[in-house]
Amino acid sequence: MRKIEHLGIAVRDLQKSNDLFKRLLGTAHYKTESVESEGVKTSFFQVGDTKIELLEATRTESPIAKFIEKKAEGIHHIAFDVEDIYTEMDRMKAEGFEILNDIPKEGADNKLVVFLHPKSTNGVLVELCQEKPKLH
Amino acid sequence: MRKIEHLGIAVRDLQKSNDLFKRLLGTAHYKTESVESEGVKTSFFQVGDTKIELLEATRTESPIAKFIEKKAEGIHHIAFDVEDIYTEMDRMKAEGFEILNDIPKEGADNKLVVFLHPKSTNGVLVELCQEKPKLH
Repeated sequence: MRKIEHLGIAVRDLQKSNDLFKRLLGTAHYKTESVESEGVKTSFFQVGDTKIELLEATRTESPIAKFIEKKAEGIHHIAFDVEDIYTEMDRMKAEGFEILNDIPKEGADNKLVVFLHPKSTNGVLVELCQEKPKLH
Repeated sequence: MRKIEHLGIAVRDLQKSNDLFKRLLGTAHYKTESVESEGVKTSFFQVGDTKIELLEATRTESPIAKFIEKKAEGIHHIAFDVEDIYTEMDRMKAEGFEILNDIPKEGADNKLVVFLHPKSTNGVLVELCQEKPKLH
């Protein structure tokens, strides 16, 4: 784990929350992006060398819709930057952590991502993410 | 807000969680510290230029005990590093955020800290923290 790549926060209304976090952080989001496969619209704020990602559900079966329904708006996951996601997945399995998706998925922000089950990580939903290799 | 200073995670058993996060992060905690006034024992892990703080309650009326009882183990707060906590408190009030303690408290890790009410911040418990001036 090289650093915290971003913190994901589940919100009901991305536009309202973009304004709220702009006032909180003193800086506006620098991009928005939809991830169709996950049913989310996201926005990103830079804070030091890490990011805050706001996530709004775009359909009721989105993991973010379920999270807000079950819990509330709030911190949803911590994402760690890894150099090689497959190496890190092997290390996680060897350490006894449960990986939620065995094949890395396409995440927002040009990333390959896997999630660890919060039951194996003190209730924290952990994402591992690797910058996708650029195509030449 | 200059950067995410640390992420606070509420845990039931600091010793067990120190081991868990050591296996997760690939690095051990570098210190432990008790904050008597808050009823917590804490440990710190360095991850890139930010930190993860694990918090275990030392008494039943500790905010961490209440958090775990009401919710579960998991991410408890995000702390942002600020240069001058009083300036930032004034800015937060002007922006309509609700500050939980009007006078900065002594936090772990040589910090002055205030918290913002999660109702005003999308369900996220936000801590502002300033490194205490060193005495000469």
